[in-house]
Amino acid sequence: MLKQKISAEYVHISDVAWQPLPEGFAIGGGQWKLLHVSPELGSWSAMFAFPKGSSVASHIHVGPGEYFLTKGKLEVRGGSMGGGDTAVAPGYGYEPCNARHDQTDFLEDSEIYMSFIGPLQILDGNDNTVGVLGWEQAQALWAEQTGQR
Amino acid sequence: MLKQKISAEYVHISDVAWQPLPEGFAIGGGQWKLLHVSPELGSWSAMFAFPKGSSVASHIHVGPGEYFLTKGKLEVRGGSMGGGDTAVAPGYGYEPCNARHDQTDFLEDSEIYMSFIGPLQILDGNDNTVGVLGWEQAQALWAEQTGQR
Amino acid sequence: MLKQKISAEYVHISDVAWQPLPEGFAIGGGQWKLLHVSPELGSWSAMFAFPKGSSVASHIHVGPGEYFLTKGKLEVRGGSMGGGDTAVAPGYGYEPCNARHDQTDFLEDSEIYMSFIGPLQILDGNDNTVGVLGWEQAQALWAEQTGQR
Amino acid sequence: MLKQKISAEYVHISDVAWQPLPEGFAIGGGQWKLLHVSPELGSWSAMFAFPKGSSVASHIHVGPGEYFLTKGKLEVRGGSMGGGDTAVAPGYGYEPCNARHDQTDFLEDSEIYMSFIGPLQILDGNDNTVGVLGWEQAQALWAEQTGQR
Repeated sequence: MLKQKISAEYVHISDVAWQPLPEGFAIGGGQWKLLHVSPELGSWSAMFAFPKGSSVASHIHVGPGEYFLTKGKLEVRGGSMGGGDTAVAPGYGYEPCNARHDQTDFLEDSEIYMSFIGPLQILDGNDNTVGVLGWEQAQALWAEQTGQR
Repeated sequence: MLKQKISAEYVHISDVAWQPLPEGFAIGGGQWKLLHVSPELGSWSAMFAFPKGSSVASHIHVGPGEYFLTKGKLEVRGGSMGGGDTAVAPGYGYEPCNARHDQTDFLEDSEIYMSFIGPLQILDGNDNTVGVLGWEQAQALWAEQTGQR
Repeated sequence: MLKQKISAEYVHISDVAWQPLPEGFAIGGGQWKLLHVSPELGSWSAMFAFPKGSSVASHIHVGPGEYFLTKGKLEVRGGSMGGGDTAVAPGYGYEPCNARHDQTDFLEDSEIYMSFIGPLQILDGNDNTVGVLGWEQAQALWAEQTGQR
Repeated sequence: MLKQKISAEYVHISDVAWQPLPEGFAIGGGQWKLLHVSPELGSWSAMFAFPKGSSVASHIHVGPGEYFLTKGKLEVRGGSMGGGDTAVAPGYGYEPCNARHDQTDFLEDSEIYMSFIGPLQILDGNDNTVGVLGWEQAQALWAEQTGQR
């Protein structure tokens, strides 16, 4: 009946192979490594690699998210010239609950660690929700890509 | 530059007038009082009143939610005969992150306090997302109903 | 390897017997019923009963907490005359992360439902930390009181 | 009355100067850069640099924490030979709510990004709480070190 403490986890990141991101999510290519999921709070963490010229489909951060850009250059929310931010590695960013990201462009080959509370809500051009990417969907995709089911 | 501590809040609940719930959310009537929103985490808390025979549209709890049934009787996820729970006041329930609620039926006039982390994702009969009810949408609806904007 | 979704929980509150609160925490008596613990986020929820004239030892809310006063009357942070709040049932309150509660007085026999993220840090008269009451300590105390270990 | 959405933040990390960590926290030296605080949830994020041979005082993670080791080598909870983990850059780790870290040793000059929900509770050799390092204390220390107050 008593609940156990959660276990610690460690991942040596370079031991994990990159997997492709779904086309509807990453435009122009993109890869990822799922590092952690937290089913209770719905948080999850991953490493992403995006090639120069790629971008991310319109999405809403349903909860807060943080990123650590370890390599490359990224314009988020249109970049610093468009009212958003331009991140250059090493860069840290906080994207609040309900942040909408219509324009996320990688200006150089980039690598970025992100941790999210809650899912990303993926939108199409008419603002319809075409997908929800949370801990459960992320884990299911990762399990499929790595042959864990 | 320095961030301030968040302020405490108090609401004497019987001083707040009930407002109607949107038709697409509450089937057969239903009222609410918004008590609190937390923009940073995306959590929110409200009091709901549902008449006997009413129900709630299909929804997914995008994050965990807790309820305290102060009056009445409620079948959640089909009720205890259908694999879910039948709550009788005073009853407490924990609904986990990603819980899907296709059948939520009030068997008696009921009152229920709920606190949520993250939004409710409202589904139609074909599992399309027809609405997202989080702190921001809840606050906007409440502001409109109470003439705050 | 894959993590499971968390299970739903339901507690019919009047089926659970009250247990005494530790003396160092409740001054003048006090009882509780533990309703839920969340080991991952460190949140927990409980019902408390405090007799008229009782109070709670000085404490800091290490994370945010919410209360629903279902019966009675409570002065928190000195009450409304002292810069805090006086809650009368039915009353809702939000106590922010890092809220310090030096004076919490029950003016009538009271019952209160509370949900916390993170522990309560209990202080003595010299501001030394004499205890930390989080999900883990709450569960251990409850297990001991109800013969679960 | 209506609450605003939280703002996005961006920090170009190499533009921020390192500040020394308090002696009671880092043994053998250590520096940090505070990147973000979240007063509502009590979460915070920082970059740390530890020289080879340094270590961290005994502490408890009051809520869950995640790290991204960008440079160097770290033994946490005694290292992989002692039942814990040995992290080598690039390494990711999840330390759960209530994790106790009595031995955290840097075997090489290291840099590590960490995000925490809730504070670190710092212990002395007799398990007395000698400090609590949460968003509020972190921000106050940072403000003092960088002349913001």
